[in-house]
Amino acid sequence: MEIALDISGHTQLISLIGKPTGHSKSPVTHTLSFKKCGVDAVYLAFDIEPENLPDVLNAMRAMKRWAGSNVTMPCKQAVIPYLDGLSAGAELIGAVNVIEKTEDGKLIGHNSDGMGFMENLRKQGVQVEGATMTLVGPGGAGSAVLVQAALDGVAKLNVFARGGGKSYKHAEGLIAKVREATNCDVTLHALEDLDDMKACIAESSILANATNVGMGEDCTDTPVPAEFLRSDLAVADCIYLPLYTQLLQDAQAVGAKAITGIGMMNEQAAVGEKIWFGIDMPVDEINAELNG
Amino acid sequence: MEIALDISGHTQLISLIGKPTGHSKSPVTHTLSFKKCGVDAVYLAFDIEPENLPDVLNAMRAMKRWAGSNVTMPCKQAVIPYLDGLSAGAELIGAVNVIEKTEDGKLIGHNSDGMGFMENLRKQGVQVEGATMTLVGPGGAGSAVLVQAALDGVAKLNVFARGGGKSYKHAEGLIAKVREATNCDVTLHALEDLDDMKACIAESSILANATNVGMGEDCTDTPVPAEFLRSDLAVADCIYLPLYTQLLQDAQAVGAKAITGIGMMNEQAAVGEKIWFGIDMPVDEINAELNG
Repeated sequence: MEIALDISGHTQLISLIGKPTGHSKSPVTHTLSFKKCGVDAVYLAFDIEPENLPDVLNAMRAMKRWAGSNVTMPCKQAVIPYLDGLSAGAELIGAVNVIEKTEDGKLIGHNSDGMGFMENLRKQGVQVEGATMTLVGPGGAGSAVLVQAALDGVAKLNVFARGGGKSYKHAEGLIAKVREATNCDVTLHALEDLDDMKACIAESSILANATNVGMGEDCTDTPVPAEFLRSDLAVADCIYLPLYTQLLQDAQAVGAKAITGIGMMNEQAAVGEKIWFGIDMPVDEINAELNG
Repeated sequence: MEIALDISGHTQLISLIGKPTGHSKSPVTHTLSFKKCGVDAVYLAFDIEPENLPDVLNAMRAMKRWAGSNVTMPCKQAVIPYLDGLSAGAELIGAVNVIEKTEDGKLIGHNSDGMGFMENLRKQGVQVEGATMTLVGPGGAGSAVLVQAALDGVAKLNVFARGGGKSYKHAEGLIAKVREATNCDVTLHALEDLDDMKACIAESSILANATNVGMGEDCTDTPVPAEFLRSDLAVADCIYLPLYTQLLQDAQAVGAKAITGIGMMNEQAAVGEKIWFGIDMPVDEINAELNG
């Protein structure tokens, strides 16, 4: 899609670094949004190896008008030692996907995955502060949701992980850190204990899926039995393909609020633009233009 | 001026590095040219300090789709130790303003100032190979013209510098290197010796001015007395403001070919695009669109 850009000596750069990045839709999405918001900037994607991160970050510090970056695989953890600071969320999660460049050229790492998920909940009218939430699957995206939910004031968080596995061990460590850093009452449960899951969901107003169960067209698997759902529950999925997973279809069937993963992805992109330029990304307008 | 760009994950970057760079017209000029030539690339300008060059060049090596650069003050000499190689011209001149990135990520320095000047002469129908040329002012731009004229097959080159000054000393050293590296018969003369200048111009088919004498609107100064000019001489100026300097007005008055500095500047830009992408910059079309 062509975007009419007024390129000049003052045009700024926001980068995506990682590998591979060529397939990314972020360059067109963000460049279009910058244009709509009146920000004179272009977003470009660069493949790099993790061992090049020190040079790339030093160049980012040194080059005026290179105003920030996104970070993707395999650099999200590797980038941390070379940054000048981390947001509370990025530090707890142990992964960075947004780099903020401060006025004095310092680079601060953020993680917008969890922020995007929580922001999307709020935009969908879900009460987050003081809520009780059940989260299934504290892996990559799930870790970010777990941390941000606790930081954003969720009062009680029931986390379900496959019992005895690596993911369970990782969740144990993460939850210990989150309990120390926040006031959230986080507890870990085994995914296999369905009675426990039923009880946890019964006391929750929010149910979030961050496993990949349900991913893929025509997949009818679900991480949570349909009979645990009820009409006053907000059910949110991190999966966006299909848009309406079996879990969300089950939620709709009982009259619950069903929140697709696309909103998380959109809000995650918006978090970056807020950090780099303080702008409110016109997410719906951008999507309509890109897909319409 | 707005340019409709199809930004994607595959869009490449060409940079300008130096300080200051914000005023540069290169971003719009080259980005428009890339678009017209079907090259998926954007040209952006970044202010940097010379001490940041090692980091910036290492990032350029490491980042796929960062495909090359221009270099401006104060980095044109400072960049040399950090490059992987130099063109013959850049090595003799001792200054780099174009960085080529090879397939395997090596960075090669070029100097397009002299190349642009000589290419412009050829485009204006001037016979360069085997010619005798008189050059006035072997300073920054003049050094580049001197070296490239010798490399491009000028047979005899009479160089005039202000006697006894720093510039004269510098020219002496440069000419010794050029005599060794090429077959050109280069000799140095004092600008103050007008009889010598008259004799040198009399044997020349090309007269080039690389001093700043004549620069500025309404300036009537000239580095060469009008009576030394004749109709079968090609007179070229590195100055482009005014477009027709007093020297060029005097040349036109005797029916000589008068070649303005704007052509050198345009061809210098075209040399960069040839090096980065192998394309022929549509110089006239670009200028018409930018100024029209």
